[in-house]
Amino acid sequence: MTYRIEKDTLGSVKVPANKYWGAQTERSRNNFRIGSEASMPIEIIHAFGFLKKAAAHANFELGILSKKKKDMISLVCDEIIEGKLNDQFPLVIWQTGSGTHTNMNINEVISNRAHVLMGGKLGSSQSFIHPNDDVNMSQSSNDTFPTAMHIASYQKLVKKTIPSIQVIKKTLEEKSKSFNNVIKIGRTHLMDATPITLGQEFSGYVSQIDHGLNALKRSLDHLSELAIGGTAVGTGLNAPKGYDKKVTEYICEYTRLPFKVAKNKFEAIASHDAIVESHGAIKQIAISLIKISNDIRFLSSGPRSGIGEIYIPKNEPGSSIMPGKINPTQCEAIIMVCTQIIGNDMAISVAGSSGNYELNVYKPLMAYNFLQSSQLLSDACFSFSSFCVKGIKPNYRRIKEFLEKSLMLVTALNTHIGYEKSEKIAKYAYENNTTLKEEAIRLGYLTVDEFENFVNPSKMV
Amino acid sequence: MTYRIEKDTLGSVKVPANKYWGAQTERSRNNFRIGSEASMPIEIIHAFGFLKKAAAHANFELGILSKKKKDMISLVCDEIIEGKLNDQFPLVIWQTGSGTHTNMNINEVISNRAHVLMGGKLGSSQSFIHPNDDVNMSQSSNDTFPTAMHIASYQKLVKKTIPSIQVIKKTLEEKSKSFNNVIKIGRTHLMDATPITLGQEFSGYVSQIDHGLNALKRSLDHLSELAIGGTAVGTGLNAPKGYDKKVTEYICEYTRLPFKVAKNKFEAIASHDAIVESHGAIKQIAISLIKISNDIRFLSSGPRSGIGEIYIPKNEPGSSIMPGKINPTQCEAIIMVCTQIIGNDMAISVAGSSGNYELNVYKPLMAYNFLQSSQLLSDACFSFSSFCVKGIKPNYRRIKEFLEKSLMLVTALNTHIGYEKSEKIAKYAYENNTTLKEEAIRLGYLTVDEFENFVNPSKMV
Amino acid sequence: MTYRIEKDTLGSVKVPANKYWGAQTERSRNNFRIGSEASMPIEIIHAFGFLKKAAAHANFELGILSKKKKDMISLVCDEIIEGKLNDQFPLVIWQTGSGTHTNMNINEVISNRAHVLMGGKLGSSQSFIHPNDDVNMSQSSNDTFPTAMHIASYQKLVKKTIPSIQVIKKTLEEKSKSFNNVIKIGRTHLMDATPITLGQEFSGYVSQIDHGLNALKRSLDHLSELAIGGTAVGTGLNAPKGYDKKVTEYICEYTRLPFKVAKNKFEAIASHDAIVESHGAIKQIAISLIKISNDIRFLSSGPRSGIGEIYIPKNEPGSSIMPGKINPTQCEAIIMVCTQIIGNDMAISVAGSSGNYELNVYKPLMAYNFLQSSQLLSDACFSFSSFCVKGIKPNYRRIKEFLEKSLMLVTALNTHIGYEKSEKIAKYAYENNTTLKEEAIRLGYLTVDEFENFVNPSKMV
Amino acid sequence: MTYRIEKDTLGSVKVPANKYWGAQTERSRNNFRIGSEASMPIEIIHAFGFLKKAAAHANFELGILSKKKKDMISLVCDEIIEGKLNDQFPLVIWQTGSGTHTNMNINEVISNRAHVLMGGKLGSSQSFIHPNDDVNMSQSSNDTFPTAMHIASYQKLVKKTIPSIQVIKKTLEEKSKSFNNVIKIGRTHLMDATPITLGQEFSGYVSQIDHGLNALKRSLDHLSELAIGGTAVGTGLNAPKGYDKKVTEYICEYTRLPFKVAKNKFEAIASHDAIVESHGAIKQIAISLIKISNDIRFLSSGPRSGIGEIYIPKNEPGSSIMPGKINPTQCEAIIMVCTQIIGNDMAISVAGSSGNYELNVYKPLMAYNFLQSSQLLSDACFSFSSFCVKGIKPNYRRIKEFLEKSLMLVTALNTHIGYEKSEKIAKYAYENNTTLKEEAIRLGYLTVDEFENFVNPSKMV
Repeated sequence: MTYRIEKDTLGSVKVPANKYWGAQTERSRNNFRIGSEASMPIEIIHAFGFLKKAAAHANFELGILSKKKKDMISLVCDEIIEGKLNDQFPLVIWQTGSGTHTNMNINEVISNRAHVLMGGKLGSSQSFIHPNDDVNMSQSSNDTFPTAMHIASYQKLVKKTIPSIQVIKKTLEEKSKSFNNVIKIGRTHLMDATPITLGQEFSGYVSQIDHGLNALKRSLDHLSELAIGGTAVGTGLNAPKGYDKKVTEYICEYTRLPFKVAKNKFEAIASHDAIVESHGAIKQIAISLIKISNDIRFLSSGPRSGIGEIYIPKNEPGSSIMPGKINPTQCEAIIMVCTQIIGNDMAISVAGSSGNYELNVYKPLMAYNFLQSSQLLSDACFSFSSFCVKGIKPNYRRIKEFLEKSLMLVTALNTHIGYEKSEKIAKYAYENNTTLKEEAIRLGYLTVDEFENFVNPSKMV
Repeated sequence: MTYRIEKDTLGSVKVPANKYWGAQTERSRNNFRIGSEASMPIEIIHAFGFLKKAAAHANFELGILSKKKKDMISLVCDEIIEGKLNDQFPLVIWQTGSGTHTNMNINEVISNRAHVLMGGKLGSSQSFIHPNDDVNMSQSSNDTFPTAMHIASYQKLVKKTIPSIQVIKKTLEEKSKSFNNVIKIGRTHLMDATPITLGQEFSGYVSQIDHGLNALKRSLDHLSELAIGGTAVGTGLNAPKGYDKKVTEYICEYTRLPFKVAKNKFEAIASHDAIVESHGAIKQIAISLIKISNDIRFLSSGPRSGIGEIYIPKNEPGSSIMPGKINPTQCEAIIMVCTQIIGNDMAISVAGSSGNYELNVYKPLMAYNFLQSSQLLSDACFSFSSFCVKGIKPNYRRIKEFLEKSLMLVTALNTHIGYEKSEKIAKYAYENNTTLKEEAIRLGYLTVDEFENFVNPSKMV
Repeated sequence: MTYRIEKDTLGSVKVPANKYWGAQTERSRNNFRIGSEASMPIEIIHAFGFLKKAAAHANFELGILSKKKKDMISLVCDEIIEGKLNDQFPLVIWQTGSGTHTNMNINEVISNRAHVLMGGKLGSSQSFIHPNDDVNMSQSSNDTFPTAMHIASYQKLVKKTIPSIQVIKKTLEEKSKSFNNVIKIGRTHLMDATPITLGQEFSGYVSQIDHGLNALKRSLDHLSELAIGGTAVGTGLNAPKGYDKKVTEYICEYTRLPFKVAKNKFEAIASHDAIVESHGAIKQIAISLIKISNDIRFLSSGPRSGIGEIYIPKNEPGSSIMPGKINPTQCEAIIMVCTQIIGNDMAISVAGSSGNYELNVYKPLMAYNFLQSSQLLSDACFSFSSFCVKGIKPNYRRIKEFLEKSLMLVTALNTHIGYEKSEKIAKYAYENNTTLKEEAIRLGYLTVDEFENFVNPSKMV
Repeated sequence: MTYRIEKDTLGSVKVPANKYWGAQTERSRNNFRIGSEASMPIEIIHAFGFLKKAAAHANFELGILSKKKKDMISLVCDEIIEGKLNDQFPLVIWQTGSGTHTNMNINEVISNRAHVLMGGKLGSSQSFIHPNDDVNMSQSSNDTFPTAMHIASYQKLVKKTIPSIQVIKKTLEEKSKSFNNVIKIGRTHLMDATPITLGQEFSGYVSQIDHGLNALKRSLDHLSELAIGGTAVGTGLNAPKGYDKKVTEYICEYTRLPFKVAKNKFEAIASHDAIVESHGAIKQIAISLIKISNDIRFLSSGPRSGIGEIYIPKNEPGSSIMPGKINPTQCEAIIMVCTQIIGNDMAISVAGSSGNYELNVYKPLMAYNFLQSSQLLSDACFSFSSFCVKGIKPNYRRIKEFLEKSLMLVTALNTHIGYEKSEKIAKYAYENNTTLKEEAIRLGYLTVDEFENFVNPSKMV
């Protein structure tokens, strides 16, 4: 590999000759060989594209950046947004906790790429556009990185996560409606209980997702606040008046999303409670989905020695050794995703609590976990909906069989003959392996007519 | 100790002669000797008092319970609510996961206490009021226990937790205002950074609490939903029509809180996402408070070899061995509370995800952790506010000293002479142990007048 | 209530007239009204009894404490150890993070109680024994509190937790042996799989507990290290030479447990990795027990519409509304306990990571969570073993029924006719609702004799 | 892209023409588009290389696999182990929870690659080697995947993680020794306390790492147990007698690591407590490292307005806006890694507790988190050691300054004049901003000679 020499305030650094990044990026690359390369989420890089472009426009409008520089910065930002420069961002999450290295990576790439676009040669001379003085004008890593975090996270939620959750909700809703008349045994403590319809069971899932979705949407407001304009510590030092609003307006324009200037920029830099809050809602939905997909895999268990009240689609051969086996693989995949999200929530919680003074230095970690959770949840919801929930069908035979022999239908007698007599009927039926009706009549508590009138599953749901 | 014999459907049980509870309570007491006795939160018991009274009124109004029985049940419920029967609830959290034992404990105590109030003798004969058929009429543990959980949790939040959080917010707000002109050095990455006012620093704390408080309040809506009327599995079997609304109205009347019938009772019994959601908001505030109290203890550290920019009150001698030592004990106490809340959130998350079919059987665990977190947070906020935050005073001398010698004031020069020249000034001042001004002039970058004009902390905040 | 006046270095304090504690305890009581009173675990108080007695003896032997003082301190310590003074320790966990207030509570109680034992009157004059100079001689809260934590934790593990875990292990082992010939269907992915014996299933549980128990025992070595002798920061300032060994020897003598002087006292005060380590092993066992008790409740589910392969004891009526219902309540209780332990582990982990410089100030939190987990685990294991596992019986009829109709017996044919042909047999049997034998013969892959020879569950386990 | 048609028991599937994988891999690829492609850790793939080769040799030796097939399987396995086929494993973590898809991916690649090596053309005809009957002979995903997990995890620990932890331990040890005579102020509760040497402080870090390393090493024994030979449910169905030992011996030979047959294969398939146990030890070390790196960044904070007792290397310009700023970036990176590990431990704990019956279906999640944690910890330890700890230097001037003015030196007087008089000296010195000596003499408690003799920091450490 050939190299060129790049300089920063600490001295000279050898940089791969054909890469746009500069000295500071290379230092970080050398000093933080932790985990696989380029682990900083690409969504953060793209969000920086919007941000740096917006900043250039605001600086130009406020008279502190030339038109030429603004145009060149914008040009490169568009390339970044379109993903054309994805291979120019080699840094890892496990760097400085402010994300400064990634901010400088962006600054350097824009500076050098602009230099080349203007006919310069990498390393030949100082770029027309200075990474700090121009690209980073009116900015600090401390306000840009959290701004990029919020842009990327908000985008991911509204463009990916929320739509996918709506898909799974809608699919569950359709199932709930179509299962509305399928009366089956209910189960509490895993034990046989009073009847319920399969549609009612699924309506509970819909309601869970609905509540979770509302919680997630309500968290968007906090997440829409941008730290930009706070610069180093929240005071806005070196940023001109009105700059924060202008940048934010441009970001809204480019992303078509309703961002706003943070109510309090000191908070927005020193803490990331908005990330904690939104991820809390993601975790809540994950918790709902674990319940739901557990139910689905238990209800479909069998085929002969499980519950088997529903069928799920056969998507893959289930076993490398047991021929003919089909497993609830989509349930397992989404449960693993949701379990990961519970772990990620813990990492985000600890990170969120650990800021000091004017800065939280767990930013890359928080961004990484948030984006992983929201992407995985989105993908898993879509996959689970398409390859599992959509294809669920009741096993009517099994459902009927269980329902008819259930001892808990006796509950309907409470209001007629009291709890204690009802208990006796159930107990004898269980011990004698008989039906409730047989025992009710044998014990002389009820006539056949009375029993048939009172104990009717279709009236019990 | 003397005993009497009580019976339930499984047979006879010896019960302490002078206690109102019956056979089922005693069975649970004997079978679940786990942790200390009576660990079921008393708030749950009191909430059951409201609920059982409301149920009796609704059942009476719907014509299925006699006036006499309604009146007697109400009478005992009032005693429960007033705390007069607190010693009649010996059961532990670690019982059946539906809380059935505690529901039966309530039912039995009401039945027997009513029997005694009506002149009966414990154990002498069957009570006029039957624990299952009368006290538990139209109910199941599966809908009453989560109803009691929501009543107790909601009450705790609006009567204790939220007011205490408002107190700490207000105290921080007052401090923020009064510290508005105290310019000090900012710190990022724990390192000296550009100036900020002490008031700005505290305004960030206020903003954190404010956002958290909003999140917590928004979670109340979900928490206000009551499962009552769902009975065993959510279908409302054995509960008369209109019963759910009536009970809920009575509960609202007695508690003066805006409860409502759950949108979906299947969800309300099988899952407890409302608890997960609200506790998520509590955790968010805990996370904010860890940051805030950490800052306060670091800022007050010293007295001579720490940061020492603020004074906190001296409340207790700090050390058993080091004379004259004063420690940030209130900060430590609240941080421990908040750390416990992070742990509790994990327990609640796992529990919330682990329901099966028609029932989540982690109810007592969830209630316990929720009520512990909300009580501790309330107490700790009040304590921290009263004994620490209220008494915070700036150490003006130290603040001034740090500010004046800070090298990061150089940042103000970026916009005048660029990042690289500014960096040289800072570097030389650091290496030569001199001031920025000395180096700026020595390097010939600025005149004295220019320097004094540009580098002025009061213009930098 | 009547009061007396007590003094400390900060001034005068009103103390309840009849209590032995002094000014510093009372200050803490007033300044930390967080959660319920006296929440500091009593095991910590008793451990302090051993420690203060041992310290007095060591100080006497090293010639810096008079015989009379040593004897009086010992006398009161014995009362503390015997639990006679339990009501003299009103402080909460949520105090200073070093536990200084509790150390001073002990010091003050010993001082004042000795004063009274010697004929003095509370508050009348300075005690013959000074709380700091005598009771706390050669000590600091910073080394005594972690010493008490280790004594209490170690004792709890070896006297309660480990024996109870051994009980559950033994019970599972007995079951495993007695179920050795009960061949049943195995289940993977919740789906029917190849056969296994019930005894083999239980042997897996035994092995889990066994591995966990080994891990827990191996953690004892770290936990046996005592910080005592480190005093304020680990250097042992103000403690005479040889003191650490002598105190530790006396503690070993009194507790009959193999404690030793910490290898590194700086670590032992600034960090509590021993607590993290041991609790990690407790968490591991909790995780095992969740798996085990989940299996047991699923295997016993029914009675008619679940798996129902085993019977568990009927200990209580299961439902307040559903007559005759029996639930796996012991499984639910222990799973809740284990879920709490997972949460506690998170609190302990965060606390353990948050020490600064020479001191970790999360000591009371760590002690509380550790002792809660180890006590609950002990109680729950004992309860689960006695009231559930011991009484488990196979439901032979159901087991046979499931086994015979299982399609996964086909796996035994792989080695004879290959995976693909075997798969066809299973598929057709499933689709046609027939037996494997019927399809094997119909497809002409095997003769009846071959089939019966190859597909024999008793050869498959 | 061109495709070929591959078949499995569910039918035909289009597969990229030039890839070795077959129908089942392609089904999984299509059905599980969750997160980025090929997220299944490559270490698992390589471990499968060892395993499949060992199985082929064992099967050959036991007379059930031909020499030719054994040789061909071995040949491809060697390619896998050498990483030559890395691009043939496109599956994600979020698949079936048993890892069956990855097991089949390996089986298919070996089968097809062998076919090609023997001159066949992909898709042209059935391979000479059958993925199930030959490559997977005597195996199930249920025993191979956990075997691969253990091989990969054990290897990672002994080849990467443990050596890196030893590096950081050694570096800290060297620092501890070289700082042995640097007497400095100690800090408890963040407040000034009695003296300590910088070497003693670092010795505490060494001791933490040492204890953690021991815990990690002790966990290796459990991790060395391999499930292989258990096949589907632990009974070893379809595996010949002696097979388990032979496979394990070959794995030991190929990896040069001391694996052994699992004591109980039912446990080894249904639970993954060994992963829980080892990751618990990793988490313990992470907790230690958070404490250590926090200390280092606080001790190096400044340069002028922090603690500043030590210098850490200047590796990168610290800020995009504040010229001359240097930040403790290595500390931040490793703390983020350790925080991630705490989150991962939670995911692993939940997963570990969630097995059912004969199988834990969170295997890929557990493998992923374990390998991520152990790799990140290794890399971070190495980076932190090389770029931070190695270069730490004391700031002698600052250390001396703090030490001399410390009020807590007064503690040395306790044993001479008692706690209360000592307290007065400290209090007046603090209030009057004087020295202890001045006040001691002014109060007449001590002569100058006495003071200088008693209060000597070098005697206090």
